[in-house]
Amino acid sequence: MVEFAAGDAVPIAHPGSDRGCSNRLAYYWPPNPSHSPMNFCSQCGTTVIVRIPPGDDKPRHVCDNCGTIHYKNPLMVIGAIPEWEDRILLCRRAIEPRLGFWTLPAGFMELGETTGAAAMRETLEEANARIELGSLYTMLSVPHANQVHIFYRAQLLDLDFGPGTESLEVALFREDEIPWDEIAFRTITITLEHFFADRKAGAYQTRSGDIHFKPPASKT
Amino acid sequence: MVEFAAGDAVPIAHPGSDRGCSNRLAYYWPPNPSHSPMNFCSQCGTTVIVRIPPGDDKPRHVCDNCGTIHYKNPLMVIGAIPEWEDRILLCRRAIEPRLGFWTLPAGFMELGETTGAAAMRETLEEANARIELGSLYTMLSVPHANQVHIFYRAQLLDLDFGPGTESLEVALFREDEIPWDEIAFRTITITLEHFFADRKAGAYQTRSGDIHFKPPASKT
Repeated sequence: MVEFAAGDAVPIAHPGSDRGCSNRLAYYWPPNPSHSPMNFCSQCGTTVIVRIPPGDDKPRHVCDNCGTIHYKNPLMVIGAIPEWEDRILLCRRAIEPRLGFWTLPAGFMELGETTGAAAMRETLEEANARIELGSLYTMLSVPHANQVHIFYRAQLLDLDFGPGTESLEVALFREDEIPWDEIAFRTITITLEHFFADRKAGAYQTRSGDIHFKPPASKT
Repeated sequence: MVEFAAGDAVPIAHPGSDRGCSNRLAYYWPPNPSHSPMNFCSQCGTTVIVRIPPGDDKPRHVCDNCGTIHYKNPLMVIGAIPEWEDRILLCRRAIEPRLGFWTLPAGFMELGETTGAAAMRETLEEANARIELGSLYTMLSVPHANQVHIFYRAQLLDLDFGPGTESLEVALFREDEIPWDEIAFRTITITLEHFFADRKAGAYQTRSGDIHFKPPASKT
């Protein structure tokens, strides 16, 4: 178990309009689908107000008609690091955010799932790939996105994979083939960097840490 | 890193009306505050319907007026195992569910937090206790409750603790003093069992696993 801190956040290149500006950070995270604006009580339809409820110390969306307090909480994004011999499976995103960038298969955990089942489902959906799940590998908090990203080690079971509807293409990469300048999210970059370092060292360690928001570097 | 499976779920006694029935499981989990019934669109106030949106494969609450899809996702409950020499800090719950039962300090992760910050905040709120956070220790999926429970190791920084508003009392326990028959939730029991076994073995390992619903045993 290794903890690492915010300082370990890895700047990655931001292609597209800023291609070539290598100190620009990939600061666009998947939008959090549960955190759309709240105007009305989802239980009774009355207009909600934002207020600190009795016994609480944080503002919440409260309904004065039916008394419901509508909490909002961070979400989990769960994924896998599918291995085949010395190669890793990556997916090129067919959807925003970060359309066209490469990612490990990952997505929002669904109701009724375990974290491991979510990693397997996302790998099947995004890469049509079957995996044998390994151990928990990284757990990274992304507080400015209200998300926790969790990745498992995994063994690809066969080579019969291909892009799902959210992927443009799916491919296997050796370490020296990884498109580091075109990785979609910082948690993917950090997870892959630890993975290759651990593989070289011959011992994998579960890691947790935090990723903090860094505004894009100004152009000087 | 050690994975364990559903079979490792530990039956614990259920005091109160069933005191003494040791094969009755503690199957009451904290209610999930984000999973109240959804009747109206929180964005525009129109009645929502449940339907599988285009490109999806799961039923969602959908608003046909403004087009919003209202997703629901599992939540994280984060806590700490505060150590003081050979003793562990537990809190006796002042609120339902499981009022009067003992728990490690833990609660729902808030927006804008890291998992570590949530563990420290919950320990301060429930036990008025300051901790130095250690490594990630357990991550347990509870799919029937739509929750993932995450516990960190922690060192208590001083003995100036006491019950917060959600606790009846707070106390330190040696291993042979733990009130095993009065622990509030199975994830707490499992986390403590692993902790004491690892302490005996002289090496702590991060663990992930799943807890599945088991109905209470029938009285024969």
